[in-house]
Amino acid sequence: MDYQKILQSIQRDIEPLKSEGQQADYIPALAAVNPDQWGICINTLDNKQYTLGDSAVPFSLQSITKVFALAMALSLEGDNLWTRMGKEPSGTAFNSLIQLELEKGKPRNPFINSGALVMADVLVERLPNPEAAFIGLARDLSGCPSIDYNFEVARSEHSVAYLNTAIANLLKYHGNIHGDIDRVLRFYFMMCSIEMNCQQLAHAFLAFADHRKPFDHAGFQLTSSQVKRMNAIMQTCGFYDEAGEFSYLVGLPGKSGVGGGIAAVFPGQYSVAVWSPRLNAKGNSVMGMKSLELLTTHSRQSIF
Amino acid sequence: MDYQKILQSIQRDIEPLKSEGQQADYIPALAAVNPDQWGICINTLDNKQYTLGDSAVPFSLQSITKVFALAMALSLEGDNLWTRMGKEPSGTAFNSLIQLELEKGKPRNPFINSGALVMADVLVERLPNPEAAFIGLARDLSGCPSIDYNFEVARSEHSVAYLNTAIANLLKYHGNIHGDIDRVLRFYFMMCSIEMNCQQLAHAFLAFADHRKPFDHAGFQLTSSQVKRMNAIMQTCGFYDEAGEFSYLVGLPGKSGVGGGIAAVFPGQYSVAVWSPRLNAKGNSVMGMKSLELLTTHSRQSIF
Amino acid sequence: MDYQKILQSIQRDIEPLKSEGQQADYIPALAAVNPDQWGICINTLDNKQYTLGDSAVPFSLQSITKVFALAMALSLEGDNLWTRMGKEPSGTAFNSLIQLELEKGKPRNPFINSGALVMADVLVERLPNPEAAFIGLARDLSGCPSIDYNFEVARSEHSVAYLNTAIANLLKYHGNIHGDIDRVLRFYFMMCSIEMNCQQLAHAFLAFADHRKPFDHAGFQLTSSQVKRMNAIMQTCGFYDEAGEFSYLVGLPGKSGVGGGIAAVFPGQYSVAVWSPRLNAKGNSVMGMKSLELLTTHSRQSIF
Amino acid sequence: MDYQKILQSIQRDIEPLKSEGQQADYIPALAAVNPDQWGICINTLDNKQYTLGDSAVPFSLQSITKVFALAMALSLEGDNLWTRMGKEPSGTAFNSLIQLELEKGKPRNPFINSGALVMADVLVERLPNPEAAFIGLARDLSGCPSIDYNFEVARSEHSVAYLNTAIANLLKYHGNIHGDIDRVLRFYFMMCSIEMNCQQLAHAFLAFADHRKPFDHAGFQLTSSQVKRMNAIMQTCGFYDEAGEFSYLVGLPGKSGVGGGIAAVFPGQYSVAVWSPRLNAKGNSVMGMKSLELLTTHSRQSIF
Repeated sequence: MDYQKILQSIQRDIEPLKSEGQQADYIPALAAVNPDQWGICINTLDNKQYTLGDSAVPFSLQSITKVFALAMALSLEGDNLWTRMGKEPSGTAFNSLIQLELEKGKPRNPFINSGALVMADVLVERLPNPEAAFIGLARDLSGCPSIDYNFEVARSEHSVAYLNTAIANLLKYHGNIHGDIDRVLRFYFMMCSIEMNCQQLAHAFLAFADHRKPFDHAGFQLTSSQVKRMNAIMQTCGFYDEAGEFSYLVGLPGKSGVGGGIAAVFPGQYSVAVWSPRLNAKGNSVMGMKSLELLTTHSRQSIF
Repeated sequence: MDYQKILQSIQRDIEPLKSEGQQADYIPALAAVNPDQWGICINTLDNKQYTLGDSAVPFSLQSITKVFALAMALSLEGDNLWTRMGKEPSGTAFNSLIQLELEKGKPRNPFINSGALVMADVLVERLPNPEAAFIGLARDLSGCPSIDYNFEVARSEHSVAYLNTAIANLLKYHGNIHGDIDRVLRFYFMMCSIEMNCQQLAHAFLAFADHRKPFDHAGFQLTSSQVKRMNAIMQTCGFYDEAGEFSYLVGLPGKSGVGGGIAAVFPGQYSVAVWSPRLNAKGNSVMGMKSLELLTTHSRQSIF
Repeated sequence: MDYQKILQSIQRDIEPLKSEGQQADYIPALAAVNPDQWGICINTLDNKQYTLGDSAVPFSLQSITKVFALAMALSLEGDNLWTRMGKEPSGTAFNSLIQLELEKGKPRNPFINSGALVMADVLVERLPNPEAAFIGLARDLSGCPSIDYNFEVARSEHSVAYLNTAIANLLKYHGNIHGDIDRVLRFYFMMCSIEMNCQQLAHAFLAFADHRKPFDHAGFQLTSSQVKRMNAIMQTCGFYDEAGEFSYLVGLPGKSGVGGGIAAVFPGQYSVAVWSPRLNAKGNSVMGMKSLELLTTHSRQSIF
Repeated sequence: MDYQKILQSIQRDIEPLKSEGQQADYIPALAAVNPDQWGICINTLDNKQYTLGDSAVPFSLQSITKVFALAMALSLEGDNLWTRMGKEPSGTAFNSLIQLELEKGKPRNPFINSGALVMADVLVERLPNPEAAFIGLARDLSGCPSIDYNFEVARSEHSVAYLNTAIANLLKYHGNIHGDIDRVLRFYFMMCSIEMNCQQLAHAFLAFADHRKPFDHAGFQLTSSQVKRMNAIMQTCGFYDEAGEFSYLVGLPGKSGVGGGIAAVFPGQYSVAVWSPRLNAKGNSVMGMKSLELLTTHSRQSIF
């Protein structure tokens, strides 16, 4: 498969979309990003990288880091994790309080904000230094020891985090946050603030595409079956209330972030990261989604 | 892969679950089924069948037929179909009116009742004899010309169909049923009433597992890409509000029915049908789901 | 109190509103009404009538008849009626299915459509000829034996009654309609179709303003306490999701209808009927509501 | 009217209910109250007091103070207040986030928690020392300069206020809290913590029963029409999702608190305060509600 050629045809085909959508602007650091960027990187299981565009420009991973959080939480808790959250698609926006109230503080899945806050609580409770452990995992997965938090972004998000604070308090009310709310929120926004470029992110997701040996990174272990099941959750819950659309158009498990990044995996073949800041109304990168749709269409390969 | 041996180990492993769950009993015909049955059949792409248990006993397909309806509706309407319904998981029970009212009569996906009623309306509107066309497709897919509707089941369901009648009227109110409500409901229940055994059902789903050539059955055509996308919808929406759980445990696209059947596909490899009448609280076959979980676990093969 | 003078000042003050709002047009008979009409009639307990404007023009009572239905149902069932519905404000639109589904088929109160359908079911079940009994009560209350159903309106509403049919089916699903759905709907629309003019309607509501002796009309009896409690329900539930607004601005128990009529009572003093076809976004008569606000403001009399 | 005799018959008639219900126990100070208490006080417009039972025992007013907050907010803002909240019954529990999210941060009415938090924000914004002004009004209305906050109760409630903190953050997210969230919450819980006994509370509510002259207390003015409209809001919204029930059984405008108190008014006649700590499932005092039902039944006087 000539992935480089496919990437070139993708670049050509997405050209008409280059002004569609709006970048996230709820904090200054995200609003300041040049929206006219697009980068992509495919990392095959035999460790070849195919890149195009702004694939070396770092961006804010935001919700993509929820996948790393799930890997850690699942490694620490095993299936006990599911006593505190579900693994069903939410059918509503990622930050809705309605479902959480109706379901008495049990988040629908780990990839909506409420679920990720519960995971943050798990990590704060179980780890002596969750920030160190988390960045350690991100560095190990990406193969890049210079990966780091963006403290300015974390602080900035925390300062306007009214909705997430509402969610965290509702969780606490239902007993589904054990620790201090502010501590949990602080760690949550630290996780979100990690920056990588497409090359680093594609490398980091290789661990979820490769089932030849168990996951064993920075001290966190998962069986191949657990990793496959993480992919299943990405497939059904990775794109907010657009999971069905992504599954339909792309046909790969993946996770998006409001920074404009998307990471996805074709199990047994490759991982892929794409980034472009302009988002559609559901909060997913316009050119990112289209790039991945074209990737599976041109390569005629998807999990279906 | 020695599928026969895997089926035997499945049969052994599900033994402890044999009294769990309750069969559907909202109509006499379903209540009268002996609940202590279990059958399974794998049909590989090279057309070998592996069977065990009550795989030759016919049962009521019920919602599994929504997959055939989608094949027909997509063949007739193409992507226009999505102007009348979404392709997102619903996050709520299959027969909920709440989401339908909030979203102004646009069903979340084709596999909840409201979506299937809209598909029934499409077929009634587009086909001179929808009943004949539908059973023609079911016969062609199953390779079995004796497949038929169960008129008694259809009539019986229609007579107590208060909730589906409520849904159909709400759809009509929002202009999303064009034809006569009673006509649409009658056809809807006819579709649900079709009976197959596991061997026939596995054969029928081969068409969704095989992407080597386009879908072309009983006059209805779909591209391979369209069939793959149907699989994507099965993956995210095929199990009511348990789609995430099925995806997590089994890792195959599939569709369940309240008669206790489940059909699933491993694209490029096989289709599988399993049947056992006792249902869990979400309306999915207890032993059916467990059988498929064991199948992908023992074979170490899933789409993830 | 010089009510005639107050009516004249009301007529002057509402002039600027005369083109505001839209009349109901979901059936031809309502769409055909000349919207530029306004009539009012006050009927005091000592049986003096004060009228102005188009107070002798008959109009479709629509939901105002739910008050008569409640009088009959309460007379027949007593407090048993409240096992089948509540008496709380709904907080949502009059025809919402959401609350009814969440609360498992128990309507919030007798004045939303679902509650009125349950009352219709009660009357159909308890009375040999509900249509005859109902019109008998309407004639007795209005003191006018020529009052009648408008069969054309009833048939016309029934033919497009998708939402009410959805509600009736949902009620039946939850066991809260005992009789035949179509029979109940037919009677429901017959009730709604009754026509009166403001003079007749004000007279009919005298029975709810007068607590000096028990209610005893056309064979239906209620204690004074029961009549007062009906007023309480009108106060909290009589104006769909605008009950609070009406209570705030007017301060009288009352009931509105989509035909543009409003009937209200000042217990111990008078009843009042006002009519003007143009409705606000909540389905209540614009000039009707304003007229009653001005009535209690100018007379400095309300229940508060 | 021999109110003393009526109070005695009430005391006799409520005896069988004395063990029904559960007192609030979410903070130690409320859990420590002896639940076997009951007191009542009627204060007529000619300033006679009729008392019985534990009418001199102070208790925590809790949500009853929302009436004082509304008087102050309405005095400061006039009808501008309604741009930030509605005046419709909520149809849901007093602390629900669902409606608030669906209605984009605009509380249904001033007497649910979200509405009271917005009023607290108004008072914090408009007054240099809201705590001093508020207790000043409470002292003036009750005619008792020793009335005070219970600082321990306020601090204790604030420390477990997860749900109210969630609500406040959701309001802030929608721009409907202008000030600092913690400052607003602190004032909110101070208001709730005020203690009075039934005699003081009945006296304080006289101001809402008496329309002979405008409201003018501690520097806050309201017209008689505004006071009547406050009564209308108490009538439709004063008892959480039991407003209809209270209106039906009692027929007076009033407001309850989770401390077991209820204050109500019969406009032009009297105010009444009753207190008993055991609450029904909706959070209203069991013996308190029954006492008021018996009061209007025995006196044959209600607003209806």
